[in-house]
Order: sequence, then C-alpha cells, then structure tokens
Amino acid sequence: MEGVDHLAQERSKAQFDVDQMKVIWAGSRHTLEVSDRIARLVASDPVFRKDNRTLLSRKDLFKNTLQKAAHAWKRITELRLSEEEAYWLRHYVDQPAYTDLHWGMFVPAIKGSGTEEQQKKWLPLAYKMQIIGCYAQTELGHGSNVQGLETTATFDPKTDEFVINSPTLTSSKWWPGGLGKAATHAVVYARLITDGQDHGVHGFIVQLRSLDDHLPLPGIIVGDIGMKFGSGAYNSMDNGVLRLDHVRIPREQMLMRVSQVTREGKYVQSNVPRQLLYGTMVYVRQTIVADASSALSRAVCIATRYSAVRRQFGSQDGGLETQVIDYKTQQSRLFPLLASAYAFRFVGEWLKWLYTDVTEKLQANDFSTLPEAHACTAGLKSLTTSATADGIEECRKLCGGHGYLSNSGLPELFAVYVPACTYEGDNIVLLLQVARFLMKTVAQLPSGKKPVGTTTYMGRAQHLIQCRSSAQKAEDWLNPSVILEVFEARAIRMSIACAQDLSKFSNQEEGFAELSSNLAEAAVAHCQLIVVSKFIDKVQQDIPGKGVKKQLEILCNIYALYTIHKHLGDFLSTGSITAKQASLANDQLRSLYSQLRPNAIALVDAFNFTDHYLGSILGRYDGNVYPSLYAEAWKDPLNESVVPDGYREYVQPLLKNQLRNARL
Amino acid sequence: MEGVDHLAQERSKAQFDVDQMKVIWAGSRHTLEVSDRIARLVASDPVFRKDNRTLLSRKDLFKNTLQKAAHAWKRITELRLSEEEAYWLRHYVDQPAYTDLHWGMFVPAIKGSGTEEQQKKWLPLAYKMQIIGCYAQTELGHGSNVQGLETTATFDPKTDEFVINSPTLTSSKWWPGGLGKAATHAVVYARLITDGQDHGVHGFIVQLRSLDDHLPLPGIIVGDIGMKFGSGAYNSMDNGVLRLDHVRIPREQMLMRVSQVTREGKYVQSNVPRQLLYGTMVYVRQTIVADASSALSRAVCIATRYSAVRRQFGSQDGGLETQVIDYKTQQSRLFPLLASAYAFRFVGEWLKWLYTDVTEKLQANDFSTLPEAHACTAGLKSLTTSATADGIEECRKLCGGHGYLSNSGLPELFAVYVPACTYEGDNIVLLLQVARFLMKTVAQLPSGKKPVGTTTYMGRAQHLIQCRSSAQKAEDWLNPSVILEVFEARAIRMSIACAQDLSKFSNQEEGFAELSSNLAEAAVAHCQLIVVSKFIDKVQQDIPGKGVKKQLEILCNIYALYTIHKHLGDFLSTGSITAKQASLANDQLRSLYSQLRPNAIALVDAFNFTDHYLGSILGRYDGNVYPSLYAEAWKDPLNESVVPDGYREYVQPLLKNQLRNARL
Ligand SMILES: Cc1cc2nc3c(=O)[nH]c(=O)nc-3n(C[C@H](O)[C@H](O)[C@H](O)COP(=O)(O)OP(=O)(O)OC[C@H]3O[C@@H](n4cnc5c(N)ncnc54)[C@H](O)[C@@H]3O)c2cc1C
Ligand SMILES: Cc1cc2nc3c(=O)[nH]c(=O)nc-3n(C[C@H](O)[C@H](O)[C@H](O)COP(=O)(O)OP(=O)(O)OC[C@H]3O[C@@H](n4cnc5c(N)ncnc54)[C@H](O)[C@@H]3O)c2cc1C
Ligand SMILES: [Ca+2]
Repeated sequence: MEGVDHLAQERSKAQFDVDQMKVIWAGSRHTLEVSDRIARLVASDPVFRKDNRTLLSRKDLFKNTLQKAAHAWKRITELRLSEEEAYWLRHYVDQPAYTDLHWGMFVPAIKGSGTEEQQKKWLPLAYKMQIIGCYAQTELGHGSNVQGLETTATFDPKTDEFVINSPTLTSSKWWPGGLGKAATHAVVYARLITDGQDHGVHGFIVQLRSLDDHLPLPGIIVGDIGMKFGSGAYNSMDNGVLRLDHVRIPREQMLMRVSQVTREGKYVQSNVPRQLLYGTMVYVRQTIVADASSALSRAVCIATRYSAVRRQFGSQDGGLETQVIDYKTQQSRLFPLLASAYAFRFVGEWLKWLYTDVTEKLQANDFSTLPEAHACTAGLKSLTTSATADGIEECRKLCGGHGYLSNSGLPELFAVYVPACTYEGDNIVLLLQVARFLMKTVAQLPSGKKPVGTTTYMGRAQHLIQCRSSAQKAEDWLNPSVILEVFEARAIRMSIACAQDLSKFSNQEEGFAELSSNLAEAAVAHCQLIVVSKFIDKVQQDIPGKGVKKQLEILCNIYALYTIHKHLGDFLSTGSITAKQASLANDQLRSLYSQLRPNAIALVDAFNFTDHYLGSILGRYDGNVYPSLYAEAWKDPLNESVVPDGYREYVQPLLKNQLRNARL
Repeated sequence: MEGVDHLAQERSKAQFDVDQMKVIWAGSRHTLEVSDRIARLVASDPVFRKDNRTLLSRKDLFKNTLQKAAHAWKRITELRLSEEEAYWLRHYVDQPAYTDLHWGMFVPAIKGSGTEEQQKKWLPLAYKMQIIGCYAQTELGHGSNVQGLETTATFDPKTDEFVINSPTLTSSKWWPGGLGKAATHAVVYARLITDGQDHGVHGFIVQLRSLDDHLPLPGIIVGDIGMKFGSGAYNSMDNGVLRLDHVRIPREQMLMRVSQVTREGKYVQSNVPRQLLYGTMVYVRQTIVADASSALSRAVCIATRYSAVRRQFGSQDGGLETQVIDYKTQQSRLFPLLASAYAFRFVGEWLKWLYTDVTEKLQANDFSTLPEAHACTAGLKSLTTSATADGIEECRKLCGGHGYLSNSGLPELFAVYVPACTYEGDNIVLLLQVARFLMKTVAQLPSGKKPVGTTTYMGRAQHLIQCRSSAQKAEDWLNPSVILEVFEARAIRMSIACAQDLSKFSNQEEGFAELSSNLAEAAVAHCQLIVVSKFIDKVQQDIPGKGVKKQLEILCNIYALYTIHKHLGDFLSTGSITAKQASLANDQLRSLYSQLRPNAIALVDAFNFTDHYLGSILGRYDGNVYPSLYAEAWKDPLNESVVPDGYREYVQPLLKNQLRNARL
C-alpha cells in the first residue's frame, strides 16, 4: 500500500489550477514559497515530532515544549532565518509555548505602550531572548472587566519606585501564558496610585525571576495554574499564577508612552494620544482572525479527505460502498465550513490591510476611522473564532467514530483552539461592544454624519429599510449585488429595530442591558455582512489560474447562501427576503454543493499542509487511513502487555468469584 | 471561609419547594432516597476519588479504572445492594469502564437475542461476573452500515462449529468498549455463511481470553485502539481492536432467538418475530436520552452556580460588580439549557414508559406501534445528544477563562460525552431514518390510515397546514395549546413540503438523497415537537409542592419559545407564525428569563448532585470558588519544583545567549 495515492482519482477530478489556488491561499507566491520551505524543514526535523504528544505527562510535555522552543531558536539562529521565516518556523512547530506570548504580547505591549527609551532598552533584550516576557493582565477574580483589576502599583517618591502588590487572593494574576515557569519578566497591569489617588490600570515591566538561577525574586510567588482542556493541546503552555508582595520596581518601568509619573510623583498625560493603544489591539485581533482561518482549514482538510476515503452504505452487489462525501447531508455540513475557511482567510487578509491603514492614519493624527476599525476587528474576532470552534467539532463529528481518536488530530485541535473564543475579549462581550457602536452609528444617521468603512452601507438606510430583493429564480442568488443587498438589508433592519426598541426605555443603559441579546444578534448580522462583502471584493479582483476564480465564486456563494439558510429567521422576520426566495436560495445552495464536490479534495490540498503539520491519520495526504490507524493503535502504552497492569489485583479476583454474596 | 455558603442568599430567593422539585427530578421519592444515599456512599469512599484523574497516564488511568470497578463490585456484594442500588453505585463512580458494556450491551444482547437455554447458560455467568463481556459490532472499515460488516462466521457441519474470521484489515473489530484489555467474551457480529450462502449479519458469543491467565486464545489478536478525546474522560475505557483468525466456536454460541442453524447446517427462522430485536434498541436509546439529561444538568449546574459567583463590570463606587448571571446575554444562553435539561429529563421518563408499552405489545404480538416507537427513540436519541454536546460546551464558554481549566469539570464532561452523538447510531443517520418514517406516514395519510403515537398530530394535517396561530399578545405565548399548535404546524408543513418535493423525482431514492438535508430538518422539527409536548403533558399533571408547578411551567415555556427563536426560519417560512408573533414570543421569553432568575440556583440544586459527582470547583455547592482554584493549582506536577525540569538544558542557554547569530 505504501506510496499509493488513494486520493489520486479525487485529485484528477479537480477543475482548477491547484498551484495557483495555493498562491491565492498563501497570499502571494513569495509567502507560499517561504511557508512551504519552512513547513518541510520543520516536518523533517525529529525534534519537532508531535505524534506522541497526547501521551506525555504534564511535566514531560512541558519539558518537550521547552526543548522545541530552544531548538526552534537554535535553527532560527543557525540558519539565520529572517523574521518572516522565523514566524513560519514557530507556526509550524505547532505547540503552544511561552514564546507565543513573548513575541505575540510582551513585545507588542512594549512597542505599543513603551516610550522610545523604554523600547530602546527592552526590545533588544527581548529580541535576543535574553529575557523572556509575558503579559500579565487577568486576575483570578477579574478578566473581561480590565478596569476592575485589583493589583496596585503605588508610587513611592522616597525611593522613586513603584510598589507592586496583590492585596487579595482574587487579585492574584491568573492565566498569563508563559508566566508559570518560563518567563523572567512580565508586563503587569495594575492600578496606578500616586499620593493616595487611583489613576486606573496601567502597565509595568516587572522582573519575576533571577536571570542567574531562574528563582523567583523576593516577594514573588509564581506557579502554574494546572491542567487545561484536553491532552496535549494547550497544556504545553505554563499559564501562570502570580502574587506580588510589595515588590519594588524603578519608576522607569511603568510603560509611559501615553501617561507618565514624574520624579515628583505627578501623574501627567503625554502628548501621545491614548487612541494609539488601540492600534495594538487591531493588530492582535487581526492575527486571531488569521489563526481562525488556519485552524478551521486544518479541520476541514481532515474531514474532507477522510470523507472521500470513508465509505458507508449504498453498495450494489458487494461492490464499493458510497463515499460519505457524496451524501448531501455530509456536504451540507462540510462544504459551508470549507467555504468559511476561505472566507475567513480573505477577511483576515483585508484586516491586515486595515491595520496598515489605521496605523498610517494614526500617525497622521487622524482618528476618524478608529472606532469603526475597532468595532470591526472586535466583531470579526468574535464571529470567526466562534464559527471556527464550532466548525472544528463539526468536522470531528463528520468523521464518525474515528474522529474521536486522538490521532485523528481533531480532539487536540479543538481543545487547543476553543480558548480563542474567550481570550483577547470574551466573544459575547465583544459583540456587545460592536452593538454599542452600531447603535451610535444609527443614532447619528439623522444628523447626516456619513458612516465610514464597513458601516458605509448604513448611509443607505432609507433605501435598505424598504427595498425588496429582486431574486426571482435560483440563479439570481449567484448575483453578488443581490446577495449583498439582502445582507445589508437584514443587518441594518436589525440594528434599526434595536435602536427603536431602545428608544422606548427612559434609561438607555437599562434598555441596552434588557435588549442585549437582540443587540448581540444585530452585531452578528453586521459582521457576517463584512465577511460576505470582503469575499465578494476578493472574487471580483483579477484572479489568474485556470478555473480558480470560478471555484472562489462557488465558495463565496456557498458561504453567503448557507449563512442565509442558517439565519433564515433574521432574513424573514426583517422582511429582507420572502419564504419563496429563501426556498430558491436553498435550491441554488444544493446545486453549488454539487458543483463543488469534484473539487473538494483539491480545494483542501490548496492549503498546502504537510502531514506533519496536519497531524492527522484521517487527513493523510495519500488517504491511506486504515493501515495507519491499525499500526498506530499498537503504540499505546496500554498495549505494552497483553494482560493489563492491574489484572491480578482487580480482574482475576472478580472472575474467580472471590467477591461473592451479590444479591443480584 | 470554610463552611460559609456563598450562595446562601441566592438559595433564599427561591420561590418554590426545592425538596419537592428533587422528587420530581428524581422521578419518585423512593428514587431520590436511593440515589441520594448511594451518591453519598460513593462520595465518601476514598477509592472513588477522581479529582486527579486528568493527571494520570493512560496505564495508570486504566489501572485505576480496574480498581474502581473491582471496588464497586466489592461494595455491591458486601453491602448486598439491590440491582437498583448497584446501578446507582456504578453511575456515581462516574468513570467509563468495561462494566458499562458488560451490563449495558453484552447482557442485553444475550437477553434480547439469546434463546432461553442460551440465557440460562450465559446470564448467570455474566451476572456473577465470572465472565466479562463486550459488544463487538463495529469494524475498522464499517460502522453505521451494519449490513456491510466483513467478519464471517462460516458453519462447519463436520465439527458442528462456526469458524469466525477477519478476512481483511478493514474487517478488524474496532471500537468495542471493554474489548481491548478486560473482556473475556464478546458478542461478535459476523456474516453467517452456511453452505456457501451468506445470510447477513448475526451475533455470536466468542470467548476471547483464557479464564485462567487472561491470555488471548489461539487465533485471537486483541488490543486497545489508543488515546481518545481529552485527558481522563473516555480514556479509562479500553475500546479495542480484534482480529480473528479462523477461530472455532460451538454451534450453540450463535445467538439463536430469531434465526438458527441446525445441526445439519440448515438456516431456519424461529417463530419468534424479528421485530423483538427492536425492543432492545428502544431500551438502549431510552437510557441514552436519560444520560443526556444527566450530562446536561451537570454542565448547567456548574455554569449556573459559577455565574452567580462570578462578577464582572457594573460596580458603582468600588462596590461589588454585577453577577454575570444577571446579564441578559448570559441568561439567554444559560436558561434555555437549564430548561433543556428538564425537558430531556421528562421526555426520558416518558421513553421509559414507552419501552414498557412496546414490550407489552410485542409480547401480545402487536407490532403496530413499533415503527413509530422506533423512529421516535431514534429521533430523540439524536436530538438530545446533539443538544447536550453543544450545551456542555456552551456552559464551558459561559464560565469564561476558568471554564477552560480541567478542574472546572467541563472539559472532561464534554470529552466524555460527545461520542454519544456517534455511537448507537450516528445522529444524522438516525435523523434520516426518522425522515423516512415521516415520509411514509405522510404518504399514507390519503389512505385514511391513522397515524399513531407521536405522529397522531399528522392525522390533523388538513387543519394544521392552513391554520393561523391565534397569538396576539406576549401572554398568549404562555398558552400550551398555542405553543403546541405552532410546533405541530411547523413540523407537518416541513414534512409535507419534503413529500411534495420528493414527488417531483422519478426515482424516490435519488430524491431522498438529494433532499436529505431538508429531510433531516423536518425530522428535527418533529422531534422538537415531541419534547415540547411531553414537557407540556408533564406540567399538566398534578404536581405537589409549593411553587413547583409554576417553575416547571416557566421552564417548559422557555424551552418552547427558545426553540421557536432558534429555528425561527422554519416557523416563518412555513407560515406557522408571523414576524409580529415571533417578536411577541421573544418579548415573552425575556420576561420568562427574569422570572426564572431568582430560582436559578435552587433549580440546579434540585438535581441533588454531590460535589464529588459534579467534580467541579466552579460548581461547588458552597460557591467558594476562588480559594479552591488557588489551592488546586499548586497540586499540578509542574509545580513540584519552582524551576522547571528542562531549565538547564533548554532555557538557560537561551537566556545566556549561547545560541547567537540571529539575523533578527
Ligand atoms: C488559554 C487562555 C490563555 C490566556 N492567556 C492570557 C494571557 O496571556 N494574559 C492575560 O492577562 N490573560 C490571559 N487569559 C485570560 C483571558 O484574557 C480572560 O479569560 C478573558 O479575558 C475572559 O475573561 P474572564 O475569564 O474573566 O471571563 P468572564 O468575563 O468572567 O466571563 C464569564 C461570562 O460572563 C459573561 N460576561 C462578562 N461580562 C459581561 C458583560 N458585561 N455583559 C454580558 N456578559 C458578560 C461572559 O460572556 C461569559 O459568558 C487567558 C485565558 C485563557 C483561557
Ligand atoms: C466512544 C465510542 C464507543 C464505541 N463503542 C462501541 C462498542 O462498544 N461496540 C461497537 O460495536 N461499536 C462501538 N462504537 C462504534 C460506533 O458504534 C460507530 O462509531 C458508530 O456507529 C458510527 O459509525 P462510523 O464510525 O462508521 O461513522 P460513519 O458512518 O463512517 O460516519 C462518518 C460520516 O458519514 C456520515 N454518514 C454515514 N452514513 C451515511 C448515510 N447513509 N447518509 C448520510 N450520511 C452518512 C455520518 O453522518 C458521518 O458524518 C463506539 C464508538 C465510539 C466513538
Ligand atoms: Ca495525559
């Protein structure tokens, strides 16, 4: 069986240029080349193997993670990899590690909130990993509400120091990744207090451990918070607990880009606008959207390939059974997820652009688009991570029983992914922020203030609240402007309905609280419109490669029509479409599934995953699933002996009936 | 803090008699008393502790499971527990074990398919656990399609034996619980072949291991299939692989209740009707529905208690923040799940009755209601397990970051629960079976044949396809007949629409395949109607206890109106309700959430869980969450040393910059 491509026939059915699609997926030929090269490098390095990860004890797993992180750094330095290459290397190592927080949160926090001197002092240390940093914001009793943090940083003018303290148990820092065992430093968020006055939460660079022997410094209690979801998964990360007992740091270690404490202990704002801090948030959330598409595409790749391998029912006269991918129920669950992976990919690409745009505008002191950009990234973070978490689990179910095996890769992918719905802003809390912004935008419509960016459509409220969709036959649902209009109509009608309901409350805050569930739904509608419209924008660009554009059109339409079907209640109750039109859309959707079917395997091949990175027997490139499952089973430690450990004590006495007297 | 009830104030708010609700939940005062007594017995026994389970290696976990199973059996015999008490004891030990399959599948298979002699021979052995049995149906390449199994059982008239054989790799038995390490015997499903003729799949009792030393018998290769989802969770089970190389068993070990092979090798049907076998299926699925309610209620109990402990935002002047349970978004996610737990409880209770009813009718040779009962249990299995799996994960998200910790109990509950969506019938495959039955029922309507049982409403098709809901104000949505009618209207209209679409196909099978996704949705609508109607039936009974009935009415209405909201597209597109009515229903739903709020904690207290069984720090009865989380963290093996294992090899060289030369 070795070397045979069991999916070759599937691959031969593809109606488009897979190589060109790889370029589209990667973003550019250059990125494809770099990421592909680094993926192979990682895959071929035995230190980076991960197929036995779910069997490691917590301590061994953590040690393995330290080893991988050090080895990654070694390879990065030995091979003199560029920043881009180093990013891909860490990505393909595919094991959460303290380095994620070091590079992903600690460094950006200093870049975003540190003064130039501070950056000059700390960034080189961080870049060379002479210190290991983490991001310590959340506390045992306080998460979403950052303003409620209890840790204090009290300025002591006598010594020109801050005294950082955890006054209560609930003020213990809790969750920061890398904090538990690896980090030597942290950006600690604490309430700044000068002269008895509380100035709210600010960031401080605090050294936690000695650089000589890694022992915690005086006044510091630090440790790991314990096991998390799943085996392997995020347990490679040392999410930590930290208590600070009047720990003193020099005044210079408050991050002072936007506000400062002077030598005399005066609290002053710098001339750098606060809003600059939002830039970092846009940046971080944009990476989360990119990660969503990456995680979802892995799950979809596994489920798609396995669905072509797996056969069940429908055999005539002892012949081959039907591939489960040919069942319409399977398609109607799987293909929308495939479409979503592409949709999130492109909206992530657009967010990257948005970040650049916002940064440029900020540098020009133009804050006009910031609230919109902020709402938009918050909403897209929420939408894409929720859909991805659900999507991974659906892919697992699509694999039937075998999806429940660790070596399908799906359980660990799910376990490692789901906290994305919670960190960097709980998804519901984020939707409510978006809703607040939408209500503000609606309220300003009468003033003639033009909504910007992704809310531009709200400027056409007059038209959108009374228009009727022109869709009259199934094919009309392939028309981008027909699709866009119904998404716009639904979104604005939901927002306006909320605004009207809100206006009936004398107390707006009470109204917002009471209607928050509807408001969150309006926010979802708005975000889905963004995803659809960015996908349409993408498809309307020049796209080279035989048949590539056609496939993207199919995927885009599937994403849109599936969303209509899933949220049909919204579309119908707002009168954005009629029941008849919904039924036509559904017919069209079925037909799109059939069009996609022959291209399904090639569309997941375009993700260009190595078997190493995918980490799934069910998702093997060559489809040679069964011998591989069989061989893998025997490696489980339980199979080290035929008669299990414990037999003599706990099974034999039972069988020998040495525990008699049952009334049964 | 010890001994303080942090939820006392919540408990004092309850507007109903919690003790009476416990009786309702348990099913009877007797069951409450027995289950409560046994729960405490298990909780107080150190052998049954499970708080360190997720830290055990696979081998230690399995050994621990063997120990618990033996200890359970010891207690059962020592204390001379009744069958009922023994059931509860195994239930509260709460760790998947080979005994689940022994009692839950092996014994019922013999009872259901064995002749009287066979039962007389094998059941006493099984009852005394002198043998350990498992249920070996699924193969590596064959699951849902049982008729496609490859294992063969060829009759050899020379020796009066069957030769059981695994002809291919894909015919390896794969998944059976208990098979890997514990079972001495299996009911093996194999294609019966006599005289070269294939009679399809039948069950055979096969001894796998020696009763002396537990070694596999000649021709038998048996082992564990490896790690599954999560840590702890279902990894305590030895789901196994089995290959049979021409293994010979006496002819008497074919399960011969409905068909037999004679000494001469003739295949004959007994006079016992085949349909009897369905009785077992109804039985097993009824237990799965009961388990769904049990698993969901655990998750809901954890999320509800923690939502009352957790505070976030809304603090005025440094006072206490708002309990997150007071946020309407939190309520709109949590309370429908609380309502679902109760709904599934009562529909499970009803299924138990149905099983008795079916059994009685079968004994009287009345098969008339069997197809309906079969469809109904298939559908309810699918509906309740899918909703429970999703619901557990939603409860985890409702706990924010802390829900991601193993000791919240939610990750393991999810991991151990989700395969219920797959085993005993893949949930989608089951829905399609229901849909087939619905299409048959619709097709027979013109003939005047009266639909029975849960399809009785279909007899009123004429009325239901054209009626308009009378709901005119929000309160109308509290009226059971208003609710029932819209659920009936939606269900039958979806079925009839499918039937009409089907009729356009010349080939019915092709039509069914093409429309299968719509058909599955129609099946869901039918099943939701069943749940709603059984809840309404329950609430309309005499219910003693102050305020208890009122609470059940609130829960029933929440379940119904939430379902309408979630599936609004169905209700609107079928014209079962109008957009205006939907909006009124939603208003009513919000008001129901407010009514439920003060009773939330008491409603989960009514599940009567011990802290041991619940296994969650976030769900502790006393709400004393934070000190407990803090104390627990330090027990993680990673915290055995302050400086982690691996520091010297993998961290120090990095910090000391001994891996230089980065281009970064
Ligand atoms: C794997 C992981 C890694 C992490 N890494 C870090 C890190 O490196 N550094 C760090 O500082 N932190 C980290 N965190 C913490 C993370 O940022 C918080 O968990 C997150 O912000 C959510 O806050 P919470 O846990 O307090 O949830 P909560 O806010 O307590 O949420 C509980 C429930 O309350 C609801 N809720 C809360 N507020 C409202 C509201 N106003 N309206 C309506 N509903 C509301 C939520 O929707 C949720 O359902 C990490 C967490 C995890 C799980
Ligand atoms: C934890 C666990 C314990 C188990 N215990 C046992 C046991 O003790 N004994 C035993 O014999 N077995 C056991 N099983 C096996 C279990 O019964 C099967 O996994 C189950 O029947 C599903 O079959 P499958 O895995 O072949 O899924 P598949 O049928 O391969 O499903 C894959 C996908 O195909 C779809 N599909 C399949 N057929 C159709 C169709 N006709 N139309 C549309 N879609 C279709 C499914 O919906 C699913 O999305 C266990 C499994 C698990 C996970
Ligand atoms: Ca483990």
